[in-house]
Amino acid sequence: MAKDQNKKQVEQITDMEVDFAQWYTDVCTKAELIDYSSVKGMFIYRPYGYAIWENIQRELDQRFKATGHTNVAMPLLIPESLLQKEKDHVEGFAPECAWVTLGGSEKLEEKLCIRPTSETLFCDHWSRIVHSWRDLPLLYNQWCSVLRWEKTSRPFLRHREFLWQEGHTLHATAEEAIAETEQMLEIYADVCENILAMPVVKGLKTDKEKFAGAERTYTIECMMHDRKALQSGTSHYFGDGFAKAFDIAYTDKNNKLTTPHETSWGLSTRTIGGIIMTHGDNRGLVLPPRIAPTQAMVIPVAMHKEGVLDAANTLLERLKAAGIRAGIDDSDQSMGWKAAEYEMKGIPLRVEIGPKDMEKDQCCICRRDTGEKVFVPLDQLEGTVKTLLDDIHDYLYAKAKKNLEDHTRACHTLEEVKTFMETEGGFAKTMWCGDVACELKMKEEAGVSSRCIPFAQEHLGDTCVCCGRPAHKMIYWGVAY
Amino acid sequence: MAKDQNKKQVEQITDMEVDFAQWYTDVCTKAELIDYSSVKGMFIYRPYGYAIWENIQRELDQRFKATGHTNVAMPLLIPESLLQKEKDHVEGFAPECAWVTLGGSEKLEEKLCIRPTSETLFCDHWSRIVHSWRDLPLLYNQWCSVLRWEKTSRPFLRHREFLWQEGHTLHATAEEAIAETEQMLEIYADVCENILAMPVVKGLKTDKEKFAGAERTYTIECMMHDRKALQSGTSHYFGDGFAKAFDIAYTDKNNKLTTPHETSWGLSTRTIGGIIMTHGDNRGLVLPPRIAPTQAMVIPVAMHKEGVLDAANTLLERLKAAGIRAGIDDSDQSMGWKAAEYEMKGIPLRVEIGPKDMEKDQCCICRRDTGEKVFVPLDQLEGTVKTLLDDIHDYLYAKAKKNLEDHTRACHTLEEVKTFMETEGGFAKTMWCGDVACELKMKEEAGVSSRCIPFAQEHLGDTCVCCGRPAHKMIYWGVAY
Repeated sequence: MAKDQNKKQVEQITDMEVDFAQWYTDVCTKAELIDYSSVKGMFIYRPYGYAIWENIQRELDQRFKATGHTNVAMPLLIPESLLQKEKDHVEGFAPECAWVTLGGSEKLEEKLCIRPTSETLFCDHWSRIVHSWRDLPLLYNQWCSVLRWEKTSRPFLRHREFLWQEGHTLHATAEEAIAETEQMLEIYADVCENILAMPVVKGLKTDKEKFAGAERTYTIECMMHDRKALQSGTSHYFGDGFAKAFDIAYTDKNNKLTTPHETSWGLSTRTIGGIIMTHGDNRGLVLPPRIAPTQAMVIPVAMHKEGVLDAANTLLERLKAAGIRAGIDDSDQSMGWKAAEYEMKGIPLRVEIGPKDMEKDQCCICRRDTGEKVFVPLDQLEGTVKTLLDDIHDYLYAKAKKNLEDHTRACHTLEEVKTFMETEGGFAKTMWCGDVACELKMKEEAGVSSRCIPFAQEHLGDTCVCCGRPAHKMIYWGVAY
Repeated sequence: MAKDQNKKQVEQITDMEVDFAQWYTDVCTKAELIDYSSVKGMFIYRPYGYAIWENIQRELDQRFKATGHTNVAMPLLIPESLLQKEKDHVEGFAPECAWVTLGGSEKLEEKLCIRPTSETLFCDHWSRIVHSWRDLPLLYNQWCSVLRWEKTSRPFLRHREFLWQEGHTLHATAEEAIAETEQMLEIYADVCENILAMPVVKGLKTDKEKFAGAERTYTIECMMHDRKALQSGTSHYFGDGFAKAFDIAYTDKNNKLTTPHETSWGLSTRTIGGIIMTHGDNRGLVLPPRIAPTQAMVIPVAMHKEGVLDAANTLLERLKAAGIRAGIDDSDQSMGWKAAEYEMKGIPLRVEIGPKDMEKDQCCICRRDTGEKVFVPLDQLEGTVKTLLDDIHDYLYAKAKKNLEDHTRACHTLEEVKTFMETEGGFAKTMWCGDVACELKMKEEAGVSSRCIPFAQEHLGDTCVCCGRPAHKMIYWGVAY
């Protein structure tokens, strides 16, 4: 057999300090999360990227079901007339719709848009099935992809087609619907913080930034490594606007015809972009252990030596039996390649075992996050791995939390905000009068958009950062993805 | 409070002996599996219908993963030029594509079709990522919806948009690819028979009936209650045709550039139609226990009596703790309504408990399939429920198997086939010469299409049922959905 010319190469990536955007793209492609497709702005979720999404899905789905939600599937296509029923909504979405105009060889009588979001489809369905108070609440969710014909695109952060879940619920009263909207935001925050190790700022969007057609939009905002903001999940309260536009009504317990109240909430694969930009480093991806497709990769050292492969496979089986997502690399690639490859892929732990370790009844465990190596007695394997995975989660969370806190600055004047954004960057927290004119001016002069009016309010002063008029709300500003 | 006018009604359905098609549609809508949408031929999978699909997904997905497959997500849209790369494939699918021609407000330079199936997308991706023998095999699967712009539609059986999984794999050798194709058919047969209680006939499609672009198509065929055939899962071997059309090549261990071999395989929500038409009866749906979203529904009798509701909830919790998918209906609907509703929904077991049962430390369990009622001592609850669920599976399977066997007939002449189809209907098994002309004649004269050349061959004679020439293959004929 000829010498194998095809050994895989260790891929190099750009340092994030040199070019953050290029570093990000490098990680997305070199860690084999994503590939570009033949259609501009549409991406292929490769096995490793999709496996991360499946783990996020599992975490969310079990929380949705535990709070009484059921999954459904609505059609992919929305007739133009249906999309137009709610005025604000169509204004928000129509400019970025992709339209089907031909079916088979025939021109369609009415063009159909590929769903950019499915409020209109849910409302149309509900208008047929809701009659009595007994039919409420309806607590639905759907896992699907949606299309938005954007001009620019970036892996995970801005796709023309992206994967997400969209929850849609219908309630007898406004109070119930608002409670639902808040509950779902808390679920997003829980998954972000406790599973993805991404600290969040929870709050309300301003009128300017809320979802098209919503009365209120709640959001969780995360700070990336480059101090930009990523909106990571939103939850909308619609009041009865959609229900009225779609003639949804129910007979209440007193036989009175009543309009119900609606919510929707969504979290998408852009969260994967958030994970990359929150935890990644110059050696590649760093995955939070609770959603890492492989939590521990077993690597036999000096594999050709007697007993090594058996010993490595024993470790693999023990880890799997303990409920740890473990893999093994017994390929003929070099140790250097394997170390670099699993660092690039962000696998939380490498578990190495070779002849010397076997003599000492130990293995060597290497952490992806800190690079620390520890020798672990074999009889303590499972317990140590579980502890280390929790430690990595805590370490990643604390590091991200420090980044968020270190780069959140109370500012009192527009000049202060400008200087902060120019010299350092991050979240500027200020008082705000509530006027959209000030929001527009902040954008124009300081280049920032409002991120949210946080639930955790602080009294920083009595006047608006922009116009100086009386102000009672504290707001976060930042540059957003 | 006014008297409640909104109590739910027990819905009536058409008897299957009166009008099988109407019975089928009634079950789909009255059991709340599906709703019609605003777009012709596109359906809404309601919570109960989608929950059945989720259970089928779980069964398949764990088998896919156990055999080394990983999930991915390809784009929704295929550029026209990409679809055209494989000649047979585009001829098969182009006539029923839906085309996107507008993105935002702009006319697209090249029209994009919504995927009718994704072979071209996988091949396009693989042409970029496959280089070496080290990259093979690629064992991918995707859960998604696809669009086929059909003229007619029926719930689950023929949608313009339907949910399915499509597996796509690439292998170094033809042998490996063929083994994969056969393995996946076995997985489909396993899930159909052992989970859905639907007996299958496994075999090979004729050249006329195989998938557009495939060298071989394997199929599982099921017989419905009306003796028509339902093709319930297919697995295709492509040889290297697609790989050549898409310039996919790898360097083998001897450094020689080599063309790989490809497969694809799919199973869709039409399987739910199969469940309905295999097991359903005139009281509605009958669900095989292993995919029933609710396996046992607890119903308190004389609920207002002291302790009844507590006793019922205790049963619920015990069943859940034993890993049984259980629910409770403690609503104020009548016992008659509840019995009829859960029969309509095909829930395998109703578990009733009232004051008299409590005195005797028992509950009453009613089987959906046979209607039998048994009184069960409370300390035997979990064991009895598990046994009954297995019994129901076995009963449903045996009944469907008897239907298949009773209505499969060996025929030796075209006249025999015609008479059999006209008087009784079912699968006619005959010898066949292999000529497509005979297939066409069978269709024209006896109204049947070839279902498959079964793996389990029998020697029924030496001459073709149609032309009388020598014949070495036994084939199944039937009327298909």
